[in-house]
Amino acid sequence: MKKIKIGAVGLGRLGRKHAENIAFRIPNAELTAVCSLIQEEVDDVVRSWDIPYGYTDFNQMLKNKELDAIAISSSSTEHCKQIEAALDAEFHVFSEKPLGVNLEECKIAEKAVERHPDKVFFLGFMRRYDDSYAYAKKKIEEGAIGKPILIRCYGLDPVKAVKGAIAFAEKSGGLFLDMAIHDIDLARWYLGSEAKSIYAVGGCYAYEEFKKYNDADNGAALIQFKNGAIGMFYAGRTCAHGYHIETEIVGTEGSLRIGTIPEKNLVTVFNDNGVVRECVSGFLERFEKAYLNEMQEFVNCIVENRRPDVTVYDGTNSTIIAYACKESFENNKLVTLE
Amino acid sequence: MKKIKIGAVGLGRLGRKHAENIAFRIPNAELTAVCSLIQEEVDDVVRSWDIPYGYTDFNQMLKNKELDAIAISSSSTEHCKQIEAALDAEFHVFSEKPLGVNLEECKIAEKAVERHPDKVFFLGFMRRYDDSYAYAKKKIEEGAIGKPILIRCYGLDPVKAVKGAIAFAEKSGGLFLDMAIHDIDLARWYLGSEAKSIYAVGGCYAYEEFKKYNDADNGAALIQFKNGAIGMFYAGRTCAHGYHIETEIVGTEGSLRIGTIPEKNLVTVFNDNGVVRECVSGFLERFEKAYLNEMQEFVNCIVENRRPDVTVYDGTNSTIIAYACKESFENNKLVTLE
Amino acid sequence: MKKIKIGAVGLGRLGRKHAENIAFRIPNAELTAVCSLIQEEVDDVVRSWDIPYGYTDFNQMLKNKELDAIAISSSSTEHCKQIEAALDAEFHVFSEKPLGVNLEECKIAEKAVERHPDKVFFLGFMRRYDDSYAYAKKKIEEGAIGKPILIRCYGLDPVKAVKGAIAFAEKSGGLFLDMAIHDIDLARWYLGSEAKSIYAVGGCYAYEEFKKYNDADNGAALIQFKNGAIGMFYAGRTCAHGYHIETEIVGTEGSLRIGTIPEKNLVTVFNDNGVVRECVSGFLERFEKAYLNEMQEFVNCIVENRRPDVTVYDGTNSTIIAYACKESFENNKLVTLE
Amino acid sequence: MKKIKIGAVGLGRLGRKHAENIAFRIPNAELTAVCSLIQEEVDDVVRSWDIPYGYTDFNQMLKNKELDAIAISSSSTEHCKQIEAALDAEFHVFSEKPLGVNLEECKIAEKAVERHPDKVFFLGFMRRYDDSYAYAKKKIEEGAIGKPILIRCYGLDPVKAVKGAIAFAEKSGGLFLDMAIHDIDLARWYLGSEAKSIYAVGGCYAYEEFKKYNDADNGAALIQFKNGAIGMFYAGRTCAHGYHIETEIVGTEGSLRIGTIPEKNLVTVFNDNGVVRECVSGFLERFEKAYLNEMQEFVNCIVENRRPDVTVYDGTNSTIIAYACKESFENNKLVTLE
Repeated sequence: MKKIKIGAVGLGRLGRKHAENIAFRIPNAELTAVCSLIQEEVDDVVRSWDIPYGYTDFNQMLKNKELDAIAISSSSTEHCKQIEAALDAEFHVFSEKPLGVNLEECKIAEKAVERHPDKVFFLGFMRRYDDSYAYAKKKIEEGAIGKPILIRCYGLDPVKAVKGAIAFAEKSGGLFLDMAIHDIDLARWYLGSEAKSIYAVGGCYAYEEFKKYNDADNGAALIQFKNGAIGMFYAGRTCAHGYHIETEIVGTEGSLRIGTIPEKNLVTVFNDNGVVRECVSGFLERFEKAYLNEMQEFVNCIVENRRPDVTVYDGTNSTIIAYACKESFENNKLVTLE
Repeated sequence: MKKIKIGAVGLGRLGRKHAENIAFRIPNAELTAVCSLIQEEVDDVVRSWDIPYGYTDFNQMLKNKELDAIAISSSSTEHCKQIEAALDAEFHVFSEKPLGVNLEECKIAEKAVERHPDKVFFLGFMRRYDDSYAYAKKKIEEGAIGKPILIRCYGLDPVKAVKGAIAFAEKSGGLFLDMAIHDIDLARWYLGSEAKSIYAVGGCYAYEEFKKYNDADNGAALIQFKNGAIGMFYAGRTCAHGYHIETEIVGTEGSLRIGTIPEKNLVTVFNDNGVVRECVSGFLERFEKAYLNEMQEFVNCIVENRRPDVTVYDGTNSTIIAYACKESFENNKLVTLE
Repeated sequence: MKKIKIGAVGLGRLGRKHAENIAFRIPNAELTAVCSLIQEEVDDVVRSWDIPYGYTDFNQMLKNKELDAIAISSSSTEHCKQIEAALDAEFHVFSEKPLGVNLEECKIAEKAVERHPDKVFFLGFMRRYDDSYAYAKKKIEEGAIGKPILIRCYGLDPVKAVKGAIAFAEKSGGLFLDMAIHDIDLARWYLGSEAKSIYAVGGCYAYEEFKKYNDADNGAALIQFKNGAIGMFYAGRTCAHGYHIETEIVGTEGSLRIGTIPEKNLVTVFNDNGVVRECVSGFLERFEKAYLNEMQEFVNCIVENRRPDVTVYDGTNSTIIAYACKESFENNKLVTLE
Repeated sequence: MKKIKIGAVGLGRLGRKHAENIAFRIPNAELTAVCSLIQEEVDDVVRSWDIPYGYTDFNQMLKNKELDAIAISSSSTEHCKQIEAALDAEFHVFSEKPLGVNLEECKIAEKAVERHPDKVFFLGFMRRYDDSYAYAKKKIEEGAIGKPILIRCYGLDPVKAVKGAIAFAEKSGGLFLDMAIHDIDLARWYLGSEAKSIYAVGGCYAYEEFKKYNDADNGAALIQFKNGAIGMFYAGRTCAHGYHIETEIVGTEGSLRIGTIPEKNLVTVFNDNGVVRECVSGFLERFEKAYLNEMQEFVNCIVENRRPDVTVYDGTNSTIIAYACKESFENNKLVTLE
């Protein structure tokens, strides 16, 4: 079996998970190189997993012509320039979301992708590859709920992670760009339309620390899409019960909910609190299989010379909408997109 | 509107609830008399609710010819003789379960009922009048699950009530007669058959105090019915999460479960324990409406000169089966009914 | 027991339910008179339930000095003038929601209430008297979820009732005034604040018939409250699975959901569709007990000379907010309340 | 990374899944050989997956000294002799359940395992490696439910598979040996005890075809364990809603349920049937990850020279109990184990 040789940049929590999936769980891929600004991270992975090449300089890795593809999990601010450089060096590219932290960056990535139509570009909106989200999409396409008319998206981080969110707040881009962007992509995907009018509100209800970054600990947006459909979004950083990602698509003839209860597993506990479902603690637990599925699909796209369903334009358009939410929230006004 | 005048005997927790329902929630009934061995209970009800007659002697109450009917919620050991006396005094009779604490008593009641075919006799198997249990019965009769082939019944008292159960253990008749009898009636009702072979086990897993009464704090029985159907019963006194009454009827084409989660109400709590449904605390909370429904049906049967679905034979036969469970448990043997 | 004598006006579906509750299920009340424009409705109730007085003229009923109180379930457009007339005739008054169909009407009612501080005025926001909603309120007050920061309200009518909604569309006041008003009252109650900014969207996604009344078959609103809290509202008339009233209150330390699944009863069906919970079909089924509780509380307020928690101002303020939703939806603009 | 070279025998549905897992999803294993009586199955796998060796003769495969381990998924009647032969040929051995179809066979396997203490022997009770079952075990060991006193196990095959079950009935060993054996192992594992008294009942309620094999389409057993704990077992072949594996462990201080609803994924469907959870269709769907986990654990045991938690004696003892169920069912008597 031919194996796609991949170089992975970024070895943070999610970057390491991607690297691990490539190394051990994708039969037709091989983790041939890793790259991180932090020498210790590189050394650790190279040694423990027996990886041929380790780099601290991304451009050095791009010179390694054994590689077929680059998987980018670096800081959000690096995504676009690394996408461009990797494509221009003739590699297939997987990049974590967000595509870019502003529209200009996204456009740079778009152009690079357009310059290399023979290369696979894959944007890490992994939820589309989650079994439940994919099943919902399939059911909708089969007509199970009629025409989708409203989507409600909850993206709630566990309060246990709020300290980290505060530390990261300065460069996160804020609640809507950092967290709601996955939901915005889902809304566009399920509704098949782009946003028209956006109103977003929020506040620092529990953690004043977000205020100095013009950010919120909880916020919501109401969006009317161009086809008339409605989007309701709620993003928060103070969820007591865990990591709560819930999506509902209401159609003219029925509804689907994905993840009403963010259950950890199939165990129900009956104790003096009542009947209890314990919940997932974070994105790596909730989307473990989705991260694997998306990387497998990236590799399969390369092997089979296909293009993934999720495109660079999904990245740009989701970023535009997330920015509009941020603008609406910051200025308390209705924002209309062209 | 003609009102049926009722004399209620027994003013314990459940007796008082029956009296209250008759007094205030059954439009075509009137609580005309109450009777209890405890003078204070009688005085309290007579005064607070403005009831015409109060008695401490049951036979005195039977002499009150203003009354149309007697509702019996006295000690289990009194049921049969009071049923007989009240019927022979030409009253309609409602009696709490169990019909009697042994077969001989039940036969006395049966004969009294047979002597007075013009009188309504109603046995308080209230679950049959619970909205959910009645709905399940209706669905089964409509064919929703095909032919019923297995029933699983859980009857679990809250551990918070275990002290009371220990205090009452000497005269309760034991786990199977005291608690499983409701489930046995349900099984007979849903399966439409009587028990053939019974094997029951149990133990004092948490409360040794039951041992000296040859009783168990938790026990289970497997019953084969004459039509071949299977009954699985679990009764317990140590339920941590509340009062758990759950029944499942498996048919050849589907199943129904009633009360999988003994939810207190429609509120779901999301907190750091996870996603929590709080539970009902006891029988008065769980079956509040069933107790009202059954008493209303008793009164309606009188008014409309109908006979209730539940008969004196349901009482006898359920007692026979509960006794067989007790015998099987005590002697660790398979018991076969003729 | 002293019984409060009530005259009930309006004998439509809900009016008749109120009358029935007064007549049969409120021990300290008596249905002494009924009134409807439709002679047959009056005759039917008077005869079947043996009611002393029947009227087709509301003002005639007000002359009956045997009465203590008036219960109003007439058309929405009649509420305010009947409230005023009944209070000025020195009766206690229960009125169905909405208080009035515009602000001016509400102010008339407010003044009448203020003129008669010795009279009980009760507005029929029955959800506050639903066991589950009341339980949620109690838990919030006990601090179970910290400070409430977001409320999400779904009010979805069954698609089976859409024909009736179309027929009634001309005088319903539209989706927000007719349906969302209950949710708006709940939001104000749980959040303890009034609305500041409102953005509402909607459309005729399945039933074009609503368009000529400037109405929608489904619509949503995002509201920022004066204390910073967020309200997300979704009202619809095309719910496939039944009558879906769901409310979620998110706090800084937990959340509560009321009615996540609008389950009909405690029966779960396992069949070849999967695991199925059947749903309630409409408001009389879902809120049966709440309607009874609120009427009982109205009567108890009279007997005990208390004032109910829900006031005439709750009516006015909810109407103001519902109107702002309507205005925002019709003009696609952000509406700000002073 | 050293890779354990495995030869897999049996390429039926489950055998092929095991082979696939070894080939593609276990990083430290390699599928080096496959064996099946059916030449086409061997050829297909060898060719499609590029496997070095293919055999139709199991003994030939045992001569291949490149191999480190043998994975057995052949017919149940072959298990014991293949286990013995493979161990005696100095291979590590994984075998599908059941260990053997009677006690004599099991004893042969036991002796072979005892002759080769340096070899890993792994019996495929994969449920122990399912995330939810393993989580329940961990919680019990942490004391979450006090002392386990009762276990309830449902093992229900989808009615869609009943034709296959009928075809296979002659050599399946019957309902208890074929299906309940997984539940029996779970009961022994969670309760930490062996069976003492067994009563089992059942019947051909929907499919008379099982009768000529002395088999049942649905059956139940009640078992008292030596430590006094209770086991309730229900096995069936006619489940309308899918593949329903549910286990409940009741302790003195709480309960756990695994798989109350055999949900397919996280999607809830709201449609005119009500609120619907779709269900898993079969064991490969439900236990996909458990099958992978157990094979990974087998390989890790070899690499790390550990012994798995599940032993050959688990196989023997579960078989003894399953046989006792069969005997009790066939003769309608209580069976007591020494």
